[in-house]
This record gives sequence, C-alpha cells and structure tokens, in this order.
Amino acid sequence: MGKLICAGLGPGDPDLMSLRAHRAVTGAADVAYFRKAGRAGQARRIVEGLLRGNVVEHAMEYPVTTELRFDTVEYNDALAHFYDDWAGRLERLLQDRDVVVLCEGDPFFYGSFMHLYSRLAGKVQIDVIPGITGMTGCWTASGQPITWGDDVLSVLMGTLPEEVMRARMAEADALVVMKTGRNLPKIRAALDAVGKLDAAFLVEAGTMPNQRIRRLAEVEGECPYFAIVLVHGQGRRPEILE
Amino acid sequence: MGKLICAGLGPGDPDLMSLRAHRAVTGAADVAYFRKAGRAGQARRIVEGLLRGNVVEHAMEYPVTTELRFDTVEYNDALAHFYDDWAGRLERLLQDRDVVVLCEGDPFFYGSFMHLYSRLAGKVQIDVIPGITGMTGCWTASGQPITWGDDVLSVLMGTLPEEVMRARMAEADALVVMKTGRNLPKIRAALDAVGKLDAAFLVEAGTMPNQRIRRLAEVEGECPYFAIVLVHGQGRRPEILE
Ligand SMILES: C[S@@+](CC[C@H](N)C(=O)[O-])C[C@H]1O[C@@H](n2cnc3c(N)ncnc32)[C@H](O)[C@@H]1O
Ligand SMILES: C[S@@+](CC[C@H](N)C(=O)[O-])C[C@H]1O[C@@H](n2cnc3c(N)ncnc32)[C@H](O)[C@@H]1O
Repeated sequence: MGKLICAGLGPGDPDLMSLRAHRAVTGAADVAYFRKAGRAGQARRIVEGLLRGNVVEHAMEYPVTTELRFDTVEYNDALAHFYDDWAGRLERLLQDRDVVVLCEGDPFFYGSFMHLYSRLAGKVQIDVIPGITGMTGCWTASGQPITWGDDVLSVLMGTLPEEVMRARMAEADALVVMKTGRNLPKIRAALDAVGKLDAAFLVEAGTMPNQRIRRLAEVEGECPYFAIVLVHGQGRRPEILE
Repeated sequence: MGKLICAGLGPGDPDLMSLRAHRAVTGAADVAYFRKAGRAGQARRIVEGLLRGNVVEHAMEYPVTTELRFDTVEYNDALAHFYDDWAGRLERLLQDRDVVVLCEGDPFFYGSFMHLYSRLAGKVQIDVIPGITGMTGCWTASGQPITWGDDVLSVLMGTLPEEVMRARMAEADALVVMKTGRNLPKIRAALDAVGKLDAAFLVEAGTMPNQRIRRLAEVEGECPYFAIVLVHGQGRRPEILE
C-alpha cells in the first residue's frame, strides 16, 4: 500500500514552500489537486515548473462552486458525493503507489483536503505536511506585525452572517477575514459598523506576482477570491525610548 | 549598507523551514537571535548544524523573563532599553554586512523581532521571511483539522486576565491558547467554565523531537513555555455518505 501525502504549499510564492513539501512535490510520480472546472487551480499554479516530466496529474474538479448557495441541500449533496468519489479513487490508486495531494496554504486550516482526510484516515497511511497559511503571507506582505502583547486574533470567514461577523469583529484586537470575493461589501459594512473600517487593509494574491495591497476604505469594484482583509492589532509593547 | 533579514524558522522541525529561510540561514555570515540568559534559545536550536563554520553569532539575551510581572514599569523599562540597545547594535553592524535574525515560527505573529522591526523600519533595509507558525505545527501534529466551514478561530494568550479569556473562549468555535507555561491552571479553569475543557488538547514542543500531545483534562503538573492548547472547530462540512 502506498502513502497519501498532503503537501501544504504555503501562500503562493514557491520559495515559501517548506523543504519537506518541496521534496514531496519534486519527487512525486502522482499528484492530485482541487480546482474549479476550466481553471488552472491555485495549488497547481504554485508548483508550476517543479513537477517531474512524467508525473501523472489527477485534477479534482469541484462539481459546483458559487452557482449554488453553500447552505443548500443540493450544494452539500453534490460536494458529499464528490469527496466520497475522490476518496474512493485515491484509495484505489494507493494500492500500488504514493499520491501527493497539493494544497495551498496549510491543509488543516479551512482546506478542502480535510474532506478527503476525514474519509480516508484510518483506512490508508496519511502524512500531512503543514504550510505557511495564506494569512501569514498576507500580513508579512502588509509590512506590519499582526499581533502584539496580549492581542486576541480572530479569523473570520466572509461567508458568516453579517450580525455574527459584526459581533466577532467588535471583540477582537486583530482580525483576519478570508473568503472575501463577493462577500466584500458585507465585510466592509460590518467593519464600518464596529468602527474598524479605517484600520483595515485588503491584500489580494499575497506573496504572488500579482500581489496588491490597499486600504479597504479606498477599494472599489470587484474583489477576487484569493484576497484577505486584515486589521492589525495594536497591543501592549515596550515603548521606543530613543 | 547591509540588509537585515528576519528568517521565520517555523514550528521547530528544521525540515519545515521554507526554502527561502533555509537559504538565508545556511548562507549567513552573521546571525542574531533572542534567548534567555543561560539557555540555548529555541530559534538557535532549530538551526543547529545548518550554520556556516565561521558564522558570527549575536545572542540577544533578555534582561528579564519571568522574574518580573510583564505589567510592571520595571519590566517594560528593562525591555525597552534592551530593544533600543540591540536595534542600535544591529544598525551599526549593518554598516558593512547583512545580518540574519533567527525567529521561531512566524516573525510577525507575537514575535520578539517585531520590537527590532518597529525601531529599525525606515532606517535600514529589512526583509521578513514568513514562517509556519507554532500553532500550525501543533494542529497538524494533533492529527485533526483546526477549522471547518464558517468556524471562527480565536488565538488567545495565556497571559490574558481570566474573565477576558473566558468571554473570548465562549464565543469562538476553534481555539488556540499560546504562552501556556505557568498560566495553564488559569487557562484550564477558563475552559472548564465555558464547557470546553473536555475538547481541549495540550501540544508540547509541536514538531520537535520531544513532542507530546495529551487531552488537557488529563494533564497534571508543570507545563513548559513551548506548549499550545487547542480546541478544534467542528463546523459545517458535507456529510460522509459512504
Ligand atoms: C478555502 S481557504 C484556504 C486557506 C488555506 N488552506 C490557507 O492555509 O491559507 C481560501 C481563502 O484563503 C485566503 N487566501 C489563501 N491564500 C491567500 C493569498 N496568498 N492571498 C490572499 N488570500 C489568500 C483567501 O481569503 C481565500 O478565500
Ligand atoms: C512569543 S510566542 C512566539 C510565536 C511564534 N512567533 C509563532 O509564530 O508561533 C511563543 C509561544 O508560541 C507557542 N509555540 C511556538 N512554537 C511552538 C511549538 N512548536 N510547540 C508548542 N508551542 C509553540 C508557545 O505557546 C509559546 O509560548
């Protein structure tokens, strides 16, 4: 029996991959990765130029993405079948080889791989290689520490209902909001309601060639899926005397 | 003028360093790192065996650690002078060379380097290399995803007052508590008060040779400084059908 290896690839810049993930990627005979049908896929893009010439690629294409609301029965059914199906296919592939699943950021932090993991853990051998999360790449790109002293950091999804978002935003010292995209107007309204809009930044494609950082208050128009809103903490720290 | 490079080293396993950090570390002529007087220092320990034979080491030894309470004037004064002093020393070193500052985890996430950064930004060229955070190493080691669906993740410091800790713990879906050590009894009481003690894990020295993972409810005795408490989120996910 082969091993299922999930390589966390980090935020986007291939140079931010760990030594272990890099070894897994460059040595892989079979790789699998999620993507939207018709798209290259973020994880696949990160390893461009690193794979062996004769690698076998397994593109796991989501059956739905934003056509259906994520809280409908149809959406959940379609995804449940999709993950069941791929878990079965990978289990069969693992009979006579290793498979490396490519994941952007860290696999255990809101990653799609977790759905394969929960289906296959206990049945096959799985090795998860952690990665630098997208948010870590984004706050580094912003040029400002995210948390000081006793700051509380809260990580929120843009898909949360606005009231919940507002309540969590009000209490946290430092904030990260992921899954922005079409949720940006809601995120912005919630930040405004709690008086934090002026302190917020939008980081698009952090650490990637098309990286872009702006104050959220100045952003107009569409927001891509690979974008994160940050509010930096301002906690306790020893004064600068000189 | 040389460049100040801060290399985020990741959670502890040197194989989890990024390609870029590894290059910075192995090529460095001068390295600087924080440590407690009389200790090896966590950052220095991670790079053991990787430094050049003729590297010049600058150990930045904290003037105080836990002898004084962190909320006293004396503690803050001592640290303010310490960071001012080292910022000055590094600025002088940078006149004719690069210096690589070694930082465990990610530098901009509750890292001591931030105090040098805030003193030197704008005066010298600084390059911050993000790293895998300690918490990411710990939740990977725990063998369970930390967040699903719309889970809110909150990161708390063990140094927070118990009432604040309790309030933040009550609202979050997934929890990370850092700076455990002597704060463990308080953290445990707060988790118990909000009904989350039974779901909590203590990860000591995540990804390091002496890694140890236990249910917090079963832990007795002392807790080291390099330890993290985790409560995994249990959010929305497509059902497993098969
Ligand atoms: C399904 S989550 C996956 C998170 C990933 N596992 C991680 O560790 O960062 C996708 C969200 O991550 C965020 N994201 C990940 N990498 C990013 C980057 N480099 N720049 C901006 N946003 C990023 C975006 O908010 C996006 O909507
Ligand atoms: C001053 S903070 C530094 C955090 C670091 N910059 C990071 O990104 O993880 C120190 C705290 O990090 C946590 N920590 C960092 N690495 C750890 C590891 N490998 N295992 C357990 N705890 C860790 C502990 O809670 C410790 O008290």
